[in-house]
Amino acid sequence: MIANTPIRSERIAADIEALAAITEPGRPWTRRAFTPRFLEGRAWLEQAMQAVGAVTQIDAAGNLIGTIPGSRPELGTIMLGSHSDTVPDGGRFDGIAGVIAALEVARALRDQGRVLEHTLEVVDFLAEEVSIFGVSCIGSRGMSDTRPLDWLTRESDGTTLEKAIAAVGGNPHRSAWRDDIKAFLELHIEQGPVLQNEETDIGVVTAIAGITRIEIIVEGRADHAGTTPMGSRKDALSTAAWIALGVEELARALAGGAAHFAATVGEFEMSPNAANVVPARVRMLIDARAELRQDMERFIDELDQGVVAIADKTGVTVSVPRLVSDNSPTPCDPGLLDILDAACETAGASHRRMASGAGHDTAWMARITRAAMIFVPCRDGRSHAPDEHAATEDIALGAAVLLQAVLALDAKLQEDS
Amino acid sequence: MIANTPIRSERIAADIEALAAITEPGRPWTRRAFTPRFLEGRAWLEQAMQAVGAVTQIDAAGNLIGTIPGSRPELGTIMLGSHSDTVPDGGRFDGIAGVIAALEVARALRDQGRVLEHTLEVVDFLAEEVSIFGVSCIGSRGMSDTRPLDWLTRESDGTTLEKAIAAVGGNPHRSAWRDDIKAFLELHIEQGPVLQNEETDIGVVTAIAGITRIEIIVEGRADHAGTTPMGSRKDALSTAAWIALGVEELARALAGGAAHFAATVGEFEMSPNAANVVPARVRMLIDARAELRQDMERFIDELDQGVVAIADKTGVTVSVPRLVSDNSPTPCDPGLLDILDAACETAGASHRRMASGAGHDTAWMARITRAAMIFVPCRDGRSHAPDEHAATEDIALGAAVLLQAVLALDAKLQEDS
Repeated sequence: MIANTPIRSERIAADIEALAAITEPGRPWTRRAFTPRFLEGRAWLEQAMQAVGAVTQIDAAGNLIGTIPGSRPELGTIMLGSHSDTVPDGGRFDGIAGVIAALEVARALRDQGRVLEHTLEVVDFLAEEVSIFGVSCIGSRGMSDTRPLDWLTRESDGTTLEKAIAAVGGNPHRSAWRDDIKAFLELHIEQGPVLQNEETDIGVVTAIAGITRIEIIVEGRADHAGTTPMGSRKDALSTAAWIALGVEELARALAGGAAHFAATVGEFEMSPNAANVVPARVRMLIDARAELRQDMERFIDELDQGVVAIADKTGVTVSVPRLVSDNSPTPCDPGLLDILDAACETAGASHRRMASGAGHDTAWMARITRAAMIFVPCRDGRSHAPDEHAATEDIALGAAVLLQAVLALDAKLQEDS
Repeated sequence: MIANTPIRSERIAADIEALAAITEPGRPWTRRAFTPRFLEGRAWLEQAMQAVGAVTQIDAAGNLIGTIPGSRPELGTIMLGSHSDTVPDGGRFDGIAGVIAALEVARALRDQGRVLEHTLEVVDFLAEEVSIFGVSCIGSRGMSDTRPLDWLTRESDGTTLEKAIAAVGGNPHRSAWRDDIKAFLELHIEQGPVLQNEETDIGVVTAIAGITRIEIIVEGRADHAGTTPMGSRKDALSTAAWIALGVEELARALAGGAAHFAATVGEFEMSPNAANVVPARVRMLIDARAELRQDMERFIDELDQGVVAIADKTGVTVSVPRLVSDNSPTPCDPGLLDILDAACETAGASHRRMASGAGHDTAWMARITRAAMIFVPCRDGRSHAPDEHAATEDIALGAAVLLQAVLALDAKLQEDS
C-alpha cells in the first residue's frame, strides 16, 4: 500500500505502544491533561522530539512544541500535530495518532537528510479533550488567542486552570498567539465508521462541523398512574417521545443531502420518575452538528415549529427550544484540501472528502492560519472507549500523505509568498 | 344534600384538622407510619375512639381497633376504617377521611342511642402507604394473613419491620387473622378526577384494579453523536420512544371499554445520558392497572408483540418485557355493592360504579370477608401531595352512606346467617 516512502510503520506502532504504557494503573487508557501521567507522557514525547533533532519548548498556552529550523526560516513555519491527552478510559489513538504521525514525518525527513526551507514544528496541544476544568481545546484556543479570559479562574481538584497551565510549564498571562505559522495539518482517527465501511484509506476533511446544543423542557402533570384516566392526563413522556422522534426524522432528512448533518437527543431526564406517577417533566438536550450553517438554521427553525405542533396535539406544555451553545462550522482551507488530495494520489492512498462531526484543534488553528486535517479509518467507528482501534498501516499511510503534503507545501508556500 | 342523617360535617372537619395538626414540623402533611408523629396521631385517634364508647386495642398486626360491642355479639363484626399514615409531603385526606368517617358513623349511632346487633369496629390499619421498609398495606396484610414472612427482617433506619411492629404495640410473631368479621367497608378519596368532572357524589367501587409492573430494556449502541451518520446508529432512545407511544396507544384502546384500564411508563432511565453520545440503553418500567384480568392479559400479549415489531423496524435490541410484579384485580363483594347503591339512594347521594385504579386495604380485607369501598370526590384528582383536598360536605355525605349501609347490613347479615 505504501509506495516509495521513508515512513516506517513499525516506528509508529512502537511509539503508540510506548505512550499507551503511560496510563493510570489498571485503567486502560487514561492520561488526562494536567495529571502526573500526562506529564510523564509529555516527557517521553519531548525526548522523542529531541531525538529527531527538534528543539523543544512549552509555549505560553501550555502546548509542547518541537521545532526543526528550516534552511530559510524567514519563510515561516509548517506545523503538524494533534494532542496526547485522553478522556477517562479512552483509547490509544484519538489525538495520539496525529502527534506520532507528525513525529514520524520529521523522522522520515531526517532519515533522508532532507531539511525543509520552512521551519517544521510538531505540536502536542494542551487538553484537547474536556479536562477536569470542564472545557476543551485549551492549548489550541490559547495559540489562536480565543481562550476566554474567565476560564483561568475555573476550579477543580483544589486548583485553578491558571495554576494548572503554569504547572505544565505555560504562562497563563502571556499570549501564545503566533503569526509565523503558514499552514497547519492534523491527522486524526475518523471516530466514525464511514472510511471503514467504504474501504477508503483517507478522509480529506472539508470542514469541522458546527455544534449547536438545544435544551427543551416538557412540562406535564404528575397524576396518580392508577386512578387518572388515560384521557385526563398530561403525560410529559409521550410528548417528549414525539419530540425525540421528530428530531430524528428532521436530522435524517437533512443528512440526506451532500453535507454532513447529525442530531442526537443525548440527554433525557424524566421526573418524578416514580413507577406510579404520570411523568410530569422531561428535560432533553439535543446535540446537532452541521457542515453547512444553512442546514443548522433550517434544523433550528423546523424544530421550533415542530415542537409547537406537537404541544398543540398533545396538550402538554413545551418550552421554546433554547440554544445552550451555537458554534458555526469551520471550513478547512481549500488550497490545503487540494494539496492533501494530490498527496493522497502520490502516496497511493484512496481518499474521499468528508466533514468532521467532532470538534478538533484544527478548528481553532483555522483562526490564525491555513488549516486542514485528514482522517484515517478506525475500527467500527469506536472512539473514547478502550476498544478504540486504528491499524498501524492506516496511520502510516496517513503519515505518508502528511509527508507528501508537507513537501508540496514547502515548495508551494514559497511560491505563494 | 345530606337529608335526615345524624352525621355532622363540622365534627368531621374538626377531626381532620386535629389530625392534620400532627405533622412533621414545617412539613405539611407528613405522618409516616412508625414515626413519633404517627404514634401521636394514633394516641389522638385512640382517645377519639374511646370518646364514642369504643374499647381500643392494637392487634398483633399493629392495627388500632376501636370496638363497640353489639347487642348480639355472636353475630360477628362489621368493620369500618382505613389508615391514618401519610406519604412524605402527603395530604390530609388520603386514608384519614376513611378513618374519620368511620368514627363519625360510630358517633352518630351513639348520638341516636342506637346499639347495633353486630359488634361495630373502627380500624386504623398500620402502614397502608409505602413505609420506610419499602412495602405497603402492612396492617391489612397482617389481618388477612398475607404478610410475607420475610418482610419481618426488612431493615431501615437501624431497625427491622419486626421491631417496628412491636414498637407500635403489635406482636410480629402472632397471627392477627380474624374470622368474626362479617363485612368490611372503607371510605376513601377517589385520588382521580372522575367524580368531580361528572359532579357525582359517590363512587361505589366495583373492584380494586390489579397492578402489573413490566420492565423493558432497550439496548442500542453508544456511538459518537458528531461522527456517526444518522443511518449507522442504534439509538436506544428513539426505539424507547416508539415503545412509550405504543404503550400509550394500547392503553387508550383498552381504556375505551367499560372497565378501568390505565398504563404508564413511570420510570425511564437513559444511559450514558451524555450530550455527545448516541443513547446506548434505556430502562423503562410500565405500571399497568386493570379492573378486568382479561384486559391485562391482552395488554401483556400485545405489548410483547408490539415490542418485537418495533425492534424489527428500528434494528435495536429490545428485551422480552419482564413482569416485575403481577397482581390480579380484587372484585368487591356484589351483595355489598347493592347495599351501598341503596344506601346512596337513602342518603340522597348521586352515585356511579367505578373501579379503583389505586391499591387499598380493602383489597386485602377481601381475602377474609365481604369487602367493598366507596369513593368521595377530591379536587382535580390530586393526591399524595400537599394540595390534596376533599370537601367536608362530600366526606360527610360519604359517612351518611356508610351509616345507611351499616344499618342495612346489621339487619341483612342477620337474615343471611
